[in-house]
Amino acid sequence: MEPGGCDAGPTVKAVAAVLPAGGSGERLGGATPKQFCTVQGRPLVSYTVRAVERVSWISDIIVVVSPENIETMKSIIEKYGHKRVTVTEGGITRHRSIFNGLKLFSENKFSNHLLQKPEVVVIHDAVRPFVEEDILLKVVMAAKEHGAAGAIRPLVSTVIASAADGCLDHSLERTKYRASEMPQAFLFDIIYQAYQQCTDYDLDYGTECLHLALKYCKTNAKLVEGTADLWKVTYKRDLYAAESIIKDSLSQQICIITDVKEAVVQVGFLLHESLRSQIKVETISISLSKRDNHLQNIFSGQCYNFVCINDKKYATEEIQQLVDMLEESNIPLLHPVVLISVHLNTSENASFSIDLEELTKMKKFAREVKRKNILVYGLLIQYKDYFPLQETVNSAAALTMALIKDRNPELTGQLVVA
Amino acid sequence: MEPGGCDAGPTVKAVAAVLPAGGSGERLGGATPKQFCTVQGRPLVSYTVRAVERVSWISDIIVVVSPENIETMKSIIEKYGHKRVTVTEGGITRHRSIFNGLKLFSENKFSNHLLQKPEVVVIHDAVRPFVEEDILLKVVMAAKEHGAAGAIRPLVSTVIASAADGCLDHSLERTKYRASEMPQAFLFDIIYQAYQQCTDYDLDYGTECLHLALKYCKTNAKLVEGTADLWKVTYKRDLYAAESIIKDSLSQQICIITDVKEAVVQVGFLLHESLRSQIKVETISISLSKRDNHLQNIFSGQCYNFVCINDKKYATEEIQQLVDMLEESNIPLLHPVVLISVHLNTSENASFSIDLEELTKMKKFAREVKRKNILVYGLLIQYKDYFPLQETVNSAAALTMALIKDRNPELTGQLVVA
Repeated sequence: MEPGGCDAGPTVKAVAAVLPAGGSGERLGGATPKQFCTVQGRPLVSYTVRAVERVSWISDIIVVVSPENIETMKSIIEKYGHKRVTVTEGGITRHRSIFNGLKLFSENKFSNHLLQKPEVVVIHDAVRPFVEEDILLKVVMAAKEHGAAGAIRPLVSTVIASAADGCLDHSLERTKYRASEMPQAFLFDIIYQAYQQCTDYDLDYGTECLHLALKYCKTNAKLVEGTADLWKVTYKRDLYAAESIIKDSLSQQICIITDVKEAVVQVGFLLHESLRSQIKVETISISLSKRDNHLQNIFSGQCYNFVCINDKKYATEEIQQLVDMLEESNIPLLHPVVLISVHLNTSENASFSIDLEELTKMKKFAREVKRKNILVYGLLIQYKDYFPLQETVNSAAALTMALIKDRNPELTGQLVVA
Repeated sequence: MEPGGCDAGPTVKAVAAVLPAGGSGERLGGATPKQFCTVQGRPLVSYTVRAVERVSWISDIIVVVSPENIETMKSIIEKYGHKRVTVTEGGITRHRSIFNGLKLFSENKFSNHLLQKPEVVVIHDAVRPFVEEDILLKVVMAAKEHGAAGAIRPLVSTVIASAADGCLDHSLERTKYRASEMPQAFLFDIIYQAYQQCTDYDLDYGTECLHLALKYCKTNAKLVEGTADLWKVTYKRDLYAAESIIKDSLSQQICIITDVKEAVVQVGFLLHESLRSQIKVETISISLSKRDNHLQNIFSGQCYNFVCINDKKYATEEIQQLVDMLEESNIPLLHPVVLISVHLNTSENASFSIDLEELTKMKKFAREVKRKNILVYGLLIQYKDYFPLQETVNSAAALTMALIKDRNPELTGQLVVA
């Protein structure tokens, strides 16, 4: 955290975050609380932790979970390599959980803790995975100035009050009201004081931290207009939406790797041209046996899709090398990586056929690699004069996009034909 | 509409529906208004019309669209064979559009119209495609008794009021308020009177029909607790969710068709057993050349997935017959139908191979059939003693489910290998 703010971080002494993740997920209709539901194989809470963790100026992240989920949460932190995260036990309501999280910074009963009391604390739901640094910064800066701040959104539906007989009493004028969302931020001393003073009724039935700050510390929170990505995963349909959004974001970039042979480089170039209207493409031609630094950089970046073009029929060795490099880079752990092994068919024989035994081997290989969260698919491109190459490459590009967008683990090891 | 209610219809003289579909879809961030965005190739508004149209006791459906979309809407009605639907021109706001829709029943300026003034009118957003008959019935019956009724849902977020300085003024107690959703229903005379009396300010800035009925006709609407499927498609993520929900509902049932040969029937049986824990399966063994009545019934039903098992290598003729029957049944019009052509490999030769020329033919065939909204995929099952058949069939079942769930049009014509 820079005091000068040159890194766009806030000029605040210390910022910590508390993520309440103790909900039971009743509205989702499943047995698993929604924060632990998996999206692309990974629990939702891990996406949210990652979103907060990548903000460098947030020093500590407290995840508050119900007692029965402590071990689950700890194993998620270990598996996905989360840093600066402390897990603590929640209470039976949301407010009690948040209060428990705040206590970690203040009480001495945790004799071995190294948590520094922050100047500002961010509170963010574990089931709002798409929070951006920008809005976190805005609420933190506003909290520093006003004592409290929270993100708001326009109301999607009109809000009405019902009378005792189940009939309409009145409807609220929509423009005067806002939905209170997350993240929220507070000067630590204010929110902690508010929690210390609030009643059991507040702790059991209240929903709004901003309300507590107002009621007990006379602090009028600054309201910050948030973007649509602050939504909360509440229903099953929201999990579907989250899955599509994540798949979408994983399909933004692709890396095409070719060896240095002319024919292969040419196909790589054509594929690049055909794909680049839909996706950011980077193409590199290398000899895979020399571990290329540039390739290493791509692996450590945000690219989750690789196309490896070869003129060998089943280039298992080359693919194995790529798998090894990917595994070392740690990126397939966070998201499923798609690796498409393209075979050029340069055989003279027009009635070229696919050998089922070879295919069985490839499927076996793909099954093993899938455990490492790498999805391998085969793609065959005809490379002959009597096949119009550009057309075949366009078809290969469409298949590539289809495989990348679906990321279907059941189809790994299959060979699609352009 | 039955007066006695034996068909679970309301005991109401006539029920009509008005679907406002004039919105511009600004919040979706695209150029196309959300009601015309396609989900599985079909405009969202068509799903909503279908949901209302399948309720037999709703006699007329008025869809209100902005002037520039009249032709689009008419062509949607024609393409998807919607019945009992009238398209009319909306105003510049939601209330003006609804009012325009209601006028169709009341004014004589439409000299050639055959619309009967209903006793009760349902108002339902064109972008809430998952409305069920049950809730429509509830609001209609409540409207008959109380004059007005509307579906409500619990609030997902706390609602707050902001002060002039952009700070929190107060937060509402969440339990006392509800989100007002759709459908709503009114005695026609009440809502029409309310619209006739209301001010330009109401028509331009109001959002809530229930509010107008209260303000101008002193009618306190009955509030009916709705289910989670009443949500409104508002943001892009909602379109993603709608797509997944529709794909999910299309993946509920599958029909396995085999010819009458023993080996094929056996594989059909094993596949049935392997699939039935995940999906409702019906298996029939027939000679396809005899147009089976039972098969016709399935085609006219709600089944959108077919597996056709053959011991021929490329059973194009059989698949063509199925395609013809599907086309006649009209079901591929509403949703993409998945048709998986299963080839049994009964060849003695272990190094069986796939002929690329045959594959190219199959891809061409699939491309043509895709225009009819039928997605054809190939699936190869090894049928040999030295391949463990049950294991291969389990793999075939997993591939079948993957193809059905993704319904990816780019992968049609491909041959996957179990």
